[in-house]
Amino acid sequence: MKLQPSLYYSHTLINQTVVTGDYVIDATAGNGNDTSYLSSIVGSKGRVYSFDIQSAAINNTKKLLSERKQLDNVTLYNCGHENIGKLIKEKITCAIFNLGYLPGQDTNKNIITHSDTTLRAIKACLKLLKKNGLVIIVLYYGHPGGQQEKNDVINFASKLNQKFFTVLKYQFINQINEPPILIAIQKKKDEFI
Amino acid sequence: MKLQPSLYYSHTLINQTVVTGDYVIDATAGNGNDTSYLSSIVGSKGRVYSFDIQSAAINNTKKLLSERKQLDNVTLYNCGHENIGKLIKEKITCAIFNLGYLPGQDTNKNIITHSDTTLRAIKACLKLLKKNGLVIIVLYYGHPGGQQEKNDVINFASKLNQKFFTVLKYQFINQINEPPILIAIQKKKDEFI
Repeated sequence: MKLQPSLYYSHTLINQTVVTGDYVIDATAGNGNDTSYLSSIVGSKGRVYSFDIQSAAINNTKKLLSERKQLDNVTLYNCGHENIGKLIKEKITCAIFNLGYLPGQDTNKNIITHSDTTLRAIKACLKLLKKNGLVIIVLYYGHPGGQQEKNDVINFASKLNQKFFTVLKYQFINQINEPPILIAIQKKKDEFI
Repeated sequence: MKLQPSLYYSHTLINQTVVTGDYVIDATAGNGNDTSYLSSIVGSKGRVYSFDIQSAAINNTKKLLSERKQLDNVTLYNCGHENIGKLIKEKITCAIFNLGYLPGQDTNKNIITHSDTTLRAIKACLKLLKKNGLVIIVLYYGHPGGQQEKNDVINFASKLNQKFFTVLKYQFINQINEPPILIAIQKKKDEFI
């Protein structure tokens, strides 16, 4: 078996964490792949809250979910993920972030995620997490602005109090083309942070 | 499920890679736990070559294997792992290194692994690896000399040519007590390096 690239490893971690009936967040809907994957796991009694600031992303996600008959347990928000704290009240077992820009040839690569809104969204998700729940962040950073966001996210995560969180960095270190880095933050206690 | 500490994750990777009949190396027998785990997987048609420079480690390993009736498919070498290149000729699917010192209260913590012999052993194992085989290195570095060895191993691994190897670093980044870092090197091609 091949060592799993970060994107695949994010699904392995989701699969080990999320079960039927859970509430979960896709903080960057993109083309809908993670939303669809989460929808298939949480089933009819669970729910996926899926955010994207770009309407192209929300449309792509809606199309994919429609084709796969998965719209029933997904709520799509066409707004930035910095609104998660305001909009979501349920406790969650998982939130996933794919940071960078919307994948695909036709999309606007000038629209990228930014540290300030990203960190606000991550903090909101950490508050909503149940014990042993995971915030998973896949960091693409080859684009302009990507290095800054990567550094800010890793710096934030590495300072989280180890009494409350465990932070894993999963990274391929001999690749020229800056493959994505995965950060997984697991909550150790149910109490408020 | 909890995020797996590096030591457990090394067993997950072994489990995904090693099958019955394989030849494998435990480059740091220590108290014999990895040798025993590998022995249970490779079975009677495979073989574990297990090295340790300390006779206390070889004795502990022999005792554990004897209790578990696992001596038949293990060859124990009471010498430094820098001799791997000279002593082992078979192609292997996995080699595991636990770098630092022999765990346990009664052992001599002055006897630690060192960069020069460690790197010689890692290079020998990389040559012996089959395609998709893994060299797994669990780096303990809290002891004197540990930081230097850690830096040397990571520096070496991060410079391996991506045409021939994929190098994963699996690390917990918000812990005060320097938990071990796992490095996994996977060979991508069968040819000699």
